[in-house]
Amino acid sequence: MKDKKGTVSFVSSGPGDPELLTLRAIRRLQVADVVLYDDLASGPVLEQAGPQAECIAVGKRAGRPSAKQEYVNSLLVEHAQAGRHVVRLKSGDSGVFGRLEEELTALREAGIPFEIVPGVPSAMAAAAVAGLPLTRRLTARRLQFVTGADVTGGLPQDQNWAALADDHATTVVFMGQRTFPAMAASLIEHGLPPETPALLAEAVGTPQQRLVRTSVAGLAALLDAEGPSPNPALILYGPLARTD
Amino acid sequence: MKDKKGTVSFVSSGPGDPELLTLRAIRRLQVADVVLYDDLASGPVLEQAGPQAECIAVGKRAGRPSAKQEYVNSLLVEHAQAGRHVVRLKSGDSGVFGRLEEELTALREAGIPFEIVPGVPSAMAAAAVAGLPLTRRLTARRLQFVTGADVTGGLPQDQNWAALADDHATTVVFMGQRTFPAMAASLIEHGLPPETPALLAEAVGTPQQRLVRTSVAGLAALLDAEGPSPNPALILYGPLARTD
Repeated sequence: MKDKKGTVSFVSSGPGDPELLTLRAIRRLQVADVVLYDDLASGPVLEQAGPQAECIAVGKRAGRPSAKQEYVNSLLVEHAQAGRHVVRLKSGDSGVFGRLEEELTALREAGIPFEIVPGVPSAMAAAAVAGLPLTRRLTARRLQFVTGADVTGGLPQDQNWAALADDHATTVVFMGQRTFPAMAASLIEHGLPPETPALLAEAVGTPQQRLVRTSVAGLAALLDAEGPSPNPALILYGPLARTD
Repeated sequence: MKDKKGTVSFVSSGPGDPELLTLRAIRRLQVADVVLYDDLASGPVLEQAGPQAECIAVGKRAGRPSAKQEYVNSLLVEHAQAGRHVVRLKSGDSGVFGRLEEELTALREAGIPFEIVPGVPSAMAAAAVAGLPLTRRLTARRLQFVTGADVTGGLPQDQNWAALADDHATTVVFMGQRTFPAMAASLIEHGLPPETPALLAEAVGTPQQRLVRTSVAGLAALLDAEGPSPNPALILYGPLARTD
C-alpha cells in the first residue's frame, strides 16, 4: 500500500482509430499505472499507454469465462485503493451502453475519486465515415441511441416502440446484429415503413471496416441470412441513412 | 484559381475545451488554408489553427446581420473551388443539430470532396463533467437528443411527445433554454413526472461552466424566473440526471 491516493479516469477510446482519441485521453493513458480495457478498446488505442502501465483485459470477450461486472468493479476499487492511477478504457463514449453507472456506484461506495473523459461515440464515427449527418431540420429532428441486446443477449422487450418506430428520427442500435431481424419486425408492426433507409456499419475506423446501405427490411433479411459478423457493428436507420 | 483541388473537412470542435479535440481535428486545423467557424467553436479551439489559416466567423451570432445558411454554403463552395483546404469547424459533434446536411448537399452539388471528422458531442461532455452516465440497464435504456428551438427560435410543435415524455430514457435538449418552460409543460401533460431529475449544463469545459441540478418542473420554474443565460447550455433530464 502506498500513501498516495489512487484515482480512476474513465477514458473514452472512441471507435478504435487512435486519431479519434482526444488529447486528454492520450494524456491519461500516458501516465496510467493500470489500464483496465474492454475488448473493443484495445489494438492501436491501447498502444498509447505508457511503458509503465499494466494493461488488463476485462471485456466480455476478453477471457473465458467472461469477466463479470462485479469482478471489474472490484478490480477498479482494489487498484485505486493500492494508490494507483487507474484508467478504465471503454469503447466509444464511456457513458453510452458501457455499464458506467455500475462502476461509478462501486467507486462512490468505496470513496474513490474519479473523472470521466468523454469521447467520440461510435455512432458519430459511423455516421462520419458514411458521410451522413445525424439530424436534419424538420425530417430528422430527434436522434436516439438504443441497445439491441439486454444482459442475456436477447432483444429487450419493454421498449418504447412509439419512439423507435418514428421515421422522423435517426435511430442508432448498439449491439443489435443478432436481434435486428426480430427488432425490425416489431418496428414495422409499430408503423415504421419497411423501406426506411438503414446502414450497417461494421468495425468503423479499422482495416475491417464495412458499410452496408440498405433498408430496415433489407437489413433484417440480410442479417437473417448471413448471421452476425464477428466484428462490432452499429445499425443506423431513419431518413438520413439513405443510399445515395 | 489554383490548379490543386480544394477540399472541405467538417471538423467537430467538441464542447470548447481544446483538450477534448481529437488528434485528427488538431491536424486538420494545423494545415487549413481557411477555417469557417461557428461562434460556439471559437476561443482556444480556434487557436489550434496554423498561422497560415484565414479564420472567418460564420456563426449565427457572429455578425449583425447574422450569417445566413445559404451564405455559409456559398463560402464553403467558393473557397474550395479556389483550391483551398477548408476546415468547417462546428461545435460539439458536427453531425448533431449543426445543419450539416445542408452544407453537404451544397458540396455534393458542386462536386467538391469532403470528409467528416467526428468529435465529442457537447451532451457527452456535459454528462462527464456532471459525473453522470447517459444510459443504465433497465431504467435508462434509451438516450435521445432533441432540439428545443426550430429555425424561428420557437419550440418545435410536431414532436414525438411519447418519446420525449418517457422517464425510462435520458433526454438531452439542445438550444432549449428559452423554450424549456413550455416544453416542460407539454412533457408533464404527456405523462413525464414533474419531479424527473434534470440538469442544466452551461458553458461546459469553459471558465464560465455552471451546473444546476434540479427537476424538470424546478428547471422550468428557474428558467421562467431567471430567463436564459447568455452562455450555451444543454438540458438533460431522466432518472440518471439525479441530484446526489
